[in-house]
Amino acid sequence: MTDRILTPDELEAALRAIGAERYHNLHPFHRALHDGRLNKGQVQAWALNRYYYQASIPAKDASLLARLPTTELRREWRRRLEDHDGTQPGTGGVARWLKLTDGLGLDRAYVESLEGLLPGTRFAVEAYVQFVRERSILEAIASSLTELFSPTIISERVAGMLGNYDFVTEETLAYFKPRLTQAPQDSAFALAYVREHARTAEQQTAVLNALRFKCNVLWSMLDALDYAYVVPGHVPPGAFRPGPQA
Amino acid sequence: MTDRILTPDELEAALRAIGAERYHNLHPFHRALHDGRLNKGQVQAWALNRYYYQASIPAKDASLLARLPTTELRREWRRRLEDHDGTQPGTGGVARWLKLTDGLGLDRAYVESLEGLLPGTRFAVEAYVQFVRERSILEAIASSLTELFSPTIISERVAGMLGNYDFVTEETLAYFKPRLTQAPQDSAFALAYVREHARTAEQQTAVLNALRFKCNVLWSMLDALDYAYVVPGHVPPGAFRPGPQA
Repeated sequence: MTDRILTPDELEAALRAIGAERYHNLHPFHRALHDGRLNKGQVQAWALNRYYYQASIPAKDASLLARLPTTELRREWRRRLEDHDGTQPGTGGVARWLKLTDGLGLDRAYVESLEGLLPGTRFAVEAYVQFVRERSILEAIASSLTELFSPTIISERVAGMLGNYDFVTEETLAYFKPRLTQAPQDSAFALAYVREHARTAEQQTAVLNALRFKCNVLWSMLDALDYAYVVPGHVPPGAFRPGPQA
Repeated sequence: MTDRILTPDELEAALRAIGAERYHNLHPFHRALHDGRLNKGQVQAWALNRYYYQASIPAKDASLLARLPTTELRREWRRRLEDHDGTQPGTGGVARWLKLTDGLGLDRAYVESLEGLLPGTRFAVEAYVQFVRERSILEAIASSLTELFSPTIISERVAGMLGNYDFVTEETLAYFKPRLTQAPQDSAFALAYVREHARTAEQQTAVLNALRFKCNVLWSMLDALDYAYVVPGHVPPGAFRPGPQA
């Protein structure tokens, strides 16, 4: 529990401090990915697992949308669904993520089947969807605040991957470019909402814990990848195993 | 999906084959634990994280109990709650697990606070509780069938830990002894139930997948421990860090 009620600026500073300590740009797997130290099979494993996160985001947002009480809030949150699901076949963030897995040589039906998913990915993503379903609207919105930190990680990832992997092209990475404008717009709204509505010490503590929780979701997805595919690689039974081409 | 409807014996054989391939006695962390290759801090981390699993089992069983349709089924399942929660303060499996964490020198309030839990543990355990809450009664019962395989792992664990660690005593391991008789009784009931009620190919597939899911829960808990504390140890932000005494 926070000791006293924070001002909105202090609350924002506390949120940003959590990101500085716990956001997954600090994870060894992220650093290995953008430094070019992974092989193609390891990058495939990342894209395959992260697909489940991308594909679950609209379900997460729709469950919050269904609970929002005003037209203004629903209109704002509906934009996230449009960004991820698109307006026509082949558009939107989920479809663009599949261009990434296509570009990496993964079979699309296999990716969408989720068969090769690490259990650690599945449980982390489902914990996030469940959190947004069960917690207060304030906590659900606060858990989206990792987007405050995502433009940095996206820029690092795109520059690092383009510079270091010959199997990655700008077209393969088409997912990320729109996120550089969408994420700041989304996080600006969520931050303003949290600054305004987290007024008691209990609410402020809940908001800070929601962001910690979400950082844990992203971090443990990279833990699972690093353990299964990198150090030195303990692929759990049934999960994706890179082929000889990788 | 199974290709055709299996006989009860074939279904049981298929369930046992899943255990032979995916039960966590095959995990490198389990082998290191019972071979005496862990230090005290690593054993503490195991006991601390596994506490959350133990403490969540009664909640899982109570949610199933609340959905069971007959006195006979509820009476059978209620026994599990009695085993874990006991009948008086200080009795039952959860209390005996705390004797283990006590014996390993962990502060009980810290263990019960769950503060030092690995996110991977939390998400896996919560996925199990959620599975039992949401799925059919048949799938929920089938997900308990890992107990078919637990007498072996318990015997290995107890013999290995007593033989290899001077900080472990028979009293510390008091949790495990009653499980050697409880688990076979529980799994005999669950197996008979599944053999009788999984009649269609869809039901049989669901039962096999429920056991695979549960094996993934246990396996990914050891993945998280092995990654955080053993190879070579990437403790995530905020999680338990063994002290200098360990």
